[in-house]
Amino acid sequence: MSRVVGIADTTFARYDMGGAAIKELQTLGRTVKIKRYTVPGIKDLPVACKILFEQEGCDIVMALGMPGAQEKDKVCAHEASQGIIQCQLQQGKHIIEVFVHEDEGQDDKELKWLMDQRAREHAKNVYLLLFKPDQLTKLAGTGQREGFKDAKPLR
Amino acid sequence: MSRVVGIADTTFARYDMGGAAIKELQTLGRTVKIKRYTVPGIKDLPVACKILFEQEGCDIVMALGMPGAQEKDKVCAHEASQGIIQCQLQQGKHIIEVFVHEDEGQDDKELKWLMDQRAREHAKNVYLLLFKPDQLTKLAGTGQREGFKDAKPLR
Amino acid sequence: MSRVVGIADTTFARYDMGGAAIKELQTLGRTVKIKRYTVPGIKDLPVACKILFEQEGCDIVMALGMPGAQEKDKVCAHEASQGIIQCQLQQGKHIIEVFVHEDEGQDDKELKWLMDQRAREHAKNVYLLLFKPDQLTKLAGTGQREGFKDAKPLR
Amino acid sequence: MSRVVGIADTTFARYDMGGAAIKELQTLGRTVKIKRYTVPGIKDLPVACKILFEQEGCDIVMALGMPGAQEKDKVCAHEASQGIIQCQLQQGKHIIEVFVHEDEGQDDKELKWLMDQRAREHAKNVYLLLFKPDQLTKLAGTGQREGFKDAKPLR
Amino acid sequence: MSRVVGIADTTFARYDMGGAAIKELQTLGRTVKIKRYTVPGIKDLPVACKILFEQEGCDIVMALGMPGAQEKDKVCAHEASQGIIQCQLQQGKHIIEVFVHEDEGQDDKELKWLMDQRAREHAKNVYLLLFKPDQLTKLAGTGQREGFKDAKPLR
Repeated sequence: MSRVVGIADTTFARYDMGGAAIKELQTLGRTVKIKRYTVPGIKDLPVACKILFEQEGCDIVMALGMPGAQEKDKVCAHEASQGIIQCQLQQGKHIIEVFVHEDEGQDDKELKWLMDQRAREHAKNVYLLLFKPDQLTKLAGTGQREGFKDAKPLR
Repeated sequence: MSRVVGIADTTFARYDMGGAAIKELQTLGRTVKIKRYTVPGIKDLPVACKILFEQEGCDIVMALGMPGAQEKDKVCAHEASQGIIQCQLQQGKHIIEVFVHEDEGQDDKELKWLMDQRAREHAKNVYLLLFKPDQLTKLAGTGQREGFKDAKPLR
Repeated sequence: MSRVVGIADTTFARYDMGGAAIKELQTLGRTVKIKRYTVPGIKDLPVACKILFEQEGCDIVMALGMPGAQEKDKVCAHEASQGIIQCQLQQGKHIIEVFVHEDEGQDDKELKWLMDQRAREHAKNVYLLLFKPDQLTKLAGTGQREGFKDAKPLR
Repeated sequence: MSRVVGIADTTFARYDMGGAAIKELQTLGRTVKIKRYTVPGIKDLPVACKILFEQEGCDIVMALGMPGAQEKDKVCAHEASQGIIQCQLQQGKHIIEVFVHEDEGQDDKELKWLMDQRAREHAKNVYLLLFKPDQLTKLAGTGQREGFKDAKPLR
Repeated sequence: MSRVVGIADTTFARYDMGGAAIKELQTLGRTVKIKRYTVPGIKDLPVACKILFEQEGCDIVMALGMPGAQEKDKVCAHEASQGIIQCQLQQGKHIIEVFVHEDEGQDDKELKWLMDQRAREHAKNVYLLLFKPDQLTKLAGTGQREGFKDAKPLR
């Protein structure tokens, strides 16, 4: 049975993270059906995810965004994240939040790389949650990171 | 089929953002029906939006407000924003939040311009969400901003 | 048809804001029925409002309180405000929050004046929401304040 | 008709606030039935209250705890308080939160005294809410405090 | 009747806290059935717990994670904790949150020890909540801690 992955993204972000996630999903082992929904900013993402679940029949959604670097933007990101968690608790389904803060990159080049890379690595998480959850359990407590390099497991 | 746009605004704000949004909506390509509901302050907006959805049959609502410049006002804005997201998750419909913080403008003139401009640009977002969602997807990840000038996409 | 206004207030506050609001409501043009419910502190207000709506048939509630001046009190006020918004989103009815922070007045005299004045001005807002919502729309974006003097509209 | 008071407390606290509240409730004018439920920490209190309401038939619950003095503990207390308010809004019944922060006492002796005293004074509030709500209204706006001495009403 | 304990953990953590909790649960007096579900990060835990309750029939869930040391990570932990409390209030069942912040250990060795120890001590709490709640009441107000040594009860 084919699964439906929702892609909720924004016009505010400075790189097409939704596109990167879709490309990555298409290279993974099984065919998934993609539904994409673009909204203005990250605070519009929670209800966008709800619409993707309820009107588009998605099994899981990726919510991709780039919060700005100002204090005000950090508050927006916090509000969006709370809404994304509330939406998951309404639906009983995962939303994989892929946020890259604008100040996480040292320059535009690194920021762009990080937005692409994190979107792709979380696309792999979506794939594992849908089809191979046991592989995630094998990785439990191993310091996995999405984007920058993995942390070391404690010895 | 005609769509109904709710305009929830406040007596606290120092510029008539609701009026600006309505004017902009009326210049756009299709006729929408407008329902306006004015409340004292931004913390009254979440339930005002709910009333616009449930009693006035709105398909989407714009929630316009001007949080003050003090720390206390920032907390109010945060509470209002959380409520606006909760309301969307109850209704499954978008509320486009249009907040301009009183300290975003360098002087009264710029603040007034920003309140007008952001209300108008978000009115365009409402139009696109209702009638041309594909145009938003074309703009995904391109650094769109409402009010001040757009950011540059990362290269 | 007569409307029922709930008054939720606290024993913690240092001035009888609930009494002031009731007196003001009684001077306004139409007769409203008042239901009063006093609780220990502001964190007890959200459920007090719910009880006023569900068990006393209120159409609107005023939630009056005086958060203390310490950081801990600011957090309490934030929690109470979030609960008051959640309650409105459950009920689909307005709760007009009338909080005066203990540090808003320069001395006891000003603080007392402010608590009385803000309660009365918000009682007028309750009256307008119930009976003359169009008058609020006429005031949209005009910088209304409750307690201290109004702000200037931007020109 | 006998009323049921729930006592939700923690093993984390450094003084038996639940025991103090129960002793006080037993000295008050009417017999109430007590249901006690002890959990590890304050973040376990919201669902403990829900269980006391739904499985033990409580009419009101006291949630007693001692948040630690570190910044991390303050965040825990905030999360617990939000959950306690949410639970009340689900149930339509009061939870009287009795938190004493570990840094509220100048030394262990004062802290112990405060935990005992605040628990007892809030037990009286529970008694008044259940049996004599009019007495609380008589105290509206009079600066009541639980634990340390009352504040002065503003003149 | 056998009880089902859910273990929700993450690939982000740098030590296998879920494994430690499971080992501890297996040494306790009664046989419990274990259901394990591993997700990428702590913000994925709230819905993972919901899935463990609703699809796997868990009676109680342990949510284990290691928030990072940066400010951004503290915000994530706060969001996860709020969601975990909301999930409990939906389900009426306990989720025992076992978070160890990456900066709680002085070095990797202590951090690893703490993650193991806290997971095990909370596994005992789960056992007591399920089978011997009276033993928790005997410990009410005695300063129990999970991981580092217990605090002293106030005298």
